[in-house]
Amino acid sequence: MAKRGSQDTPKVHKNQTIFFKNAPAIIGSYSIVGKKEGEGPLCKTFNRVVEDDYFGEKTHEGCEQKMFEHAIRGAIKDAGMKPEQVDMMMAGDLLNQIISSSFAARSFDMAFVGLYGACSTMALTLAMAASLVDGGHVNSIAVCAGSHFATAERQYRTPLELGNQRPPVSQWTVTGAGATVIRRGGASKAFSSVSGISGASPTPLRGVRRRTVLDAAETASKALEAPPRITAATIGKVVDWGVKDVNNMGAAMAPAAAATLVAHFRDTGRTPADYCHIFSGDLGKLGENVFRDLMANANYPVDARYSDCGRLIYSEEQNLYQGGSGCGCSAVTFNGFIMDKLRKGEYKRVLFVATGALLSPVSSYQGNTIPGIAHAVVIEA
Amino acid sequence: MAKRGSQDTPKVHKNQTIFFKNAPAIIGSYSIVGKKEGEGPLCKTFNRVVEDDYFGEKTHEGCEQKMFEHAIRGAIKDAGMKPEQVDMMMAGDLLNQIISSSFAARSFDMAFVGLYGACSTMALTLAMAASLVDGGHVNSIAVCAGSHFATAERQYRTPLELGNQRPPVSQWTVTGAGATVIRRGGASKAFSSVSGISGASPTPLRGVRRRTVLDAAETASKALEAPPRITAATIGKVVDWGVKDVNNMGAAMAPAAAATLVAHFRDTGRTPADYCHIFSGDLGKLGENVFRDLMANANYPVDARYSDCGRLIYSEEQNLYQGGSGCGCSAVTFNGFIMDKLRKGEYKRVLFVATGALLSPVSSYQGNTIPGIAHAVVIEA
Repeated sequence: MAKRGSQDTPKVHKNQTIFFKNAPAIIGSYSIVGKKEGEGPLCKTFNRVVEDDYFGEKTHEGCEQKMFEHAIRGAIKDAGMKPEQVDMMMAGDLLNQIISSSFAARSFDMAFVGLYGACSTMALTLAMAASLVDGGHVNSIAVCAGSHFATAERQYRTPLELGNQRPPVSQWTVTGAGATVIRRGGASKAFSSVSGISGASPTPLRGVRRRTVLDAAETASKALEAPPRITAATIGKVVDWGVKDVNNMGAAMAPAAAATLVAHFRDTGRTPADYCHIFSGDLGKLGENVFRDLMANANYPVDARYSDCGRLIYSEEQNLYQGGSGCGCSAVTFNGFIMDKLRKGEYKRVLFVATGALLSPVSSYQGNTIPGIAHAVVIEA
Repeated sequence: MAKRGSQDTPKVHKNQTIFFKNAPAIIGSYSIVGKKEGEGPLCKTFNRVVEDDYFGEKTHEGCEQKMFEHAIRGAIKDAGMKPEQVDMMMAGDLLNQIISSSFAARSFDMAFVGLYGACSTMALTLAMAASLVDGGHVNSIAVCAGSHFATAERQYRTPLELGNQRPPVSQWTVTGAGATVIRRGGASKAFSSVSGISGASPTPLRGVRRRTVLDAAETASKALEAPPRITAATIGKVVDWGVKDVNNMGAAMAPAAAATLVAHFRDTGRTPADYCHIFSGDLGKLGENVFRDLMANANYPVDARYSDCGRLIYSEEQNLYQGGSGCGCSAVTFNGFIMDKLRKGEYKRVLFVATGALLSPVSSYQGNTIPGIAHAVVIEA
C-alpha cells in the first residue's frame, strides 16, 4: 500500500478514522423498497418490494415508519435473532425530528439512539454502532435508515398534488428502508451463543419477495460461518462550497464525499486500489462526475472501481434525471446489493461512503448555502 | 447499595447501562443564554448572557447557530485547548434537520456527528461521546446542545407575531446553548500533554459575563487537578403513554424519565440515595409531579435529592407557567449550575437525566401521540 503524498494535506492533520480492533460483525441485513425501486436494476437484491405507496397505512409518513419496522424485524430475523435479544436500535431519517425512526422505535423494546446525517445516515449509524460494539459497550445493535419519495417531496420541496416540474439536476428520493444488525465477537460463536434459535431459518414476510427463502437461508448460513465485518470508519467534517440550488444535491455533497475519502486514504495510508469497490451514497450522475474530478485532482483517482448508489438504483429507462437520493438510497443499496456481494465473497473489502446534504427548507429560504457531509465505513468479507 | 427488588421488572431484563472503565473526563464546559434565562435564579452560573434575541444576526435561527459556536469555543477554551486540538464535535438541536448544529459545525475543523434526542440531546451527546472516548476511538470530543425560544415557537407552534395565548400546561423554550469537552485519560496528564497551551487561562468573550475571568481561571485550575468524570450512562427506550396535547410536554416525557431511571437503578443496583442529586432534563412542574409519583410507585422515591432543570432555570416571579424546556434547558443547566457544583466539590456523584418529546408538527397534525425518551448520565467529581 503506497502512501500518496498530496498537496491537499492541511498543515494540521487531524485523524478522522476509527479502527475497530474487534471488527464488529454484520450478522443480519434487510432491505424493503417501493415500486419504482423494485422496477430498477437492483430489484433482485432487495428482500421485499411494496407496490403500494401507503403500505396499507393512512399516510405516506405512516408508510415510511412501517418500512422502518419491517426492515429492522427483517434484519434481526436474518441474523437468526429475536428483537428481545437485540440491545439497541440506532436510526435516522429525513423527516423533521426523525419521526420515522422514533415512532418505529416504539415497537421495539430496545435502547434508542437517534442520529441525523441526512442521506449519510446509513454510514453514520453503522460507524456509531460499530464503535459502541467494538468498545464493548453494547453487544448487539440494529441500525436503520430510510426515506419515502412522497414525504420528502412534501417536506423539502412541494406536495406532489401541486404537480411541479422537476428540474434536470434533481434526484429522485428513494422509497425504502435498510437495516443491519451488528454484533460483537466472532459471529459464529456469538451466533451459537444465542440459545435455542441458532437453527432457525428466517421466515418470509408477507408481500412480494425477490430473494427467496432458500436464498435467505443460504445467505444466513454463509453469514454464520464468516460474516462481513466493519474494520474502520472515517467520520466526515461538514464541508460547504457555497452551493445554493436545493435541487442540486449532488453538487453540494460531492466536495464532502471527496474530503472524507481523502481523509480516509491519508489516515489509513491506503489508495483506491486497496478496495474491491468504493460506493458513494447518492451523489447522482452530476455529483458523481464532480466527485470523480475532485478525487483525480487529489491524486486518488477512483476510476472503474467506483459506483454511486444513486446511479445504481434506477435504470436510464426510468428517466429519473440524476438518479436516486434520500437516506433510503444508500441504506437499501448497502443492505441489498452490497451485502449480497460481500456475503457471496465477490467483494473482499468495500468502502461505503454515504453522503448527506445538511439543509432544511428554512435554512434555504433564509438564503443559506447547503453544507454537505460524508461518512465512510470499511467492510471486509 | 441495596438492590431493590421491583415488581415492575419486566421478564426479559435488557441491560441499558454502559459503564465507562476509563471514566472520560469533563475538562471544559460553557453555557450561553438569553435575557430571560439571565434574569433567572441560575444567572450567576452561566458564562455569558446575551440580551439581544438576535445576537447581532438577521434571524433567530442565525442567533441559535451563533450561540452554538460560542458555546463550543467557550468550552474548548475552558478546557485549555484550541479548536484544532479537538477531534470531534457531536451536537443536536430542535430545529428541522438540526441546522443549528450542522451550520455551526462549518466553523470547526472537526469530524461531526449529528444526534437527535429532542430535549434529551445534552445527555445523549454526553453518553455517545463518553462511549467513543472510553472505547479509545476518539481522544477529545466537544458536545453541544441548545435551543431558541423564537425558532422553536415558530417551528412547533405558531410564529410569535401571531401573539397566541399560552396554555397553563405549557413550558418556555430556553434560549441558550451549553457545550462540554470530554477527553480521555487522567485529565491533568491529558491536559499537560497538550503542548504549549497548558498555562493559558481562558480569555473572556465579548458581552455580559456573570462568571468572571478569575472565577473561570480558578475553575479551570480546579478542573485541571481532578475534573469530573463520566462513569456510566443509561440509554433510554422510547416510551409512549398516549399523550396528545402538544403543549403538555411534561406529561409526555415523565413516563420515559421514570422508565430510564428505573432501568438505571436496576442495572446498577443503586438507589436514589447513592446520588448527591438527581436532575431531570425539563419536565416542568407538572411533569416533575408525575415523575415523582411514578418513581415512588416503582419503589425508588426521589424526594428531596431531586430537581428538574425546567423548574430551576426560571423563578416563580417570571411567571412562565410550567418552567423551561428545549434542548438548551438541560444543556445550560448542566454546563452552568451542575458543573459548577461538581467542580466546587459540592456534589460528588450526580445523575443527569435529560428528557425529550419525539414529536413533530406533522406527526401531531396526523393525530399521533407523543413518544418520549430519556437518557441518564452519571458524573462523579
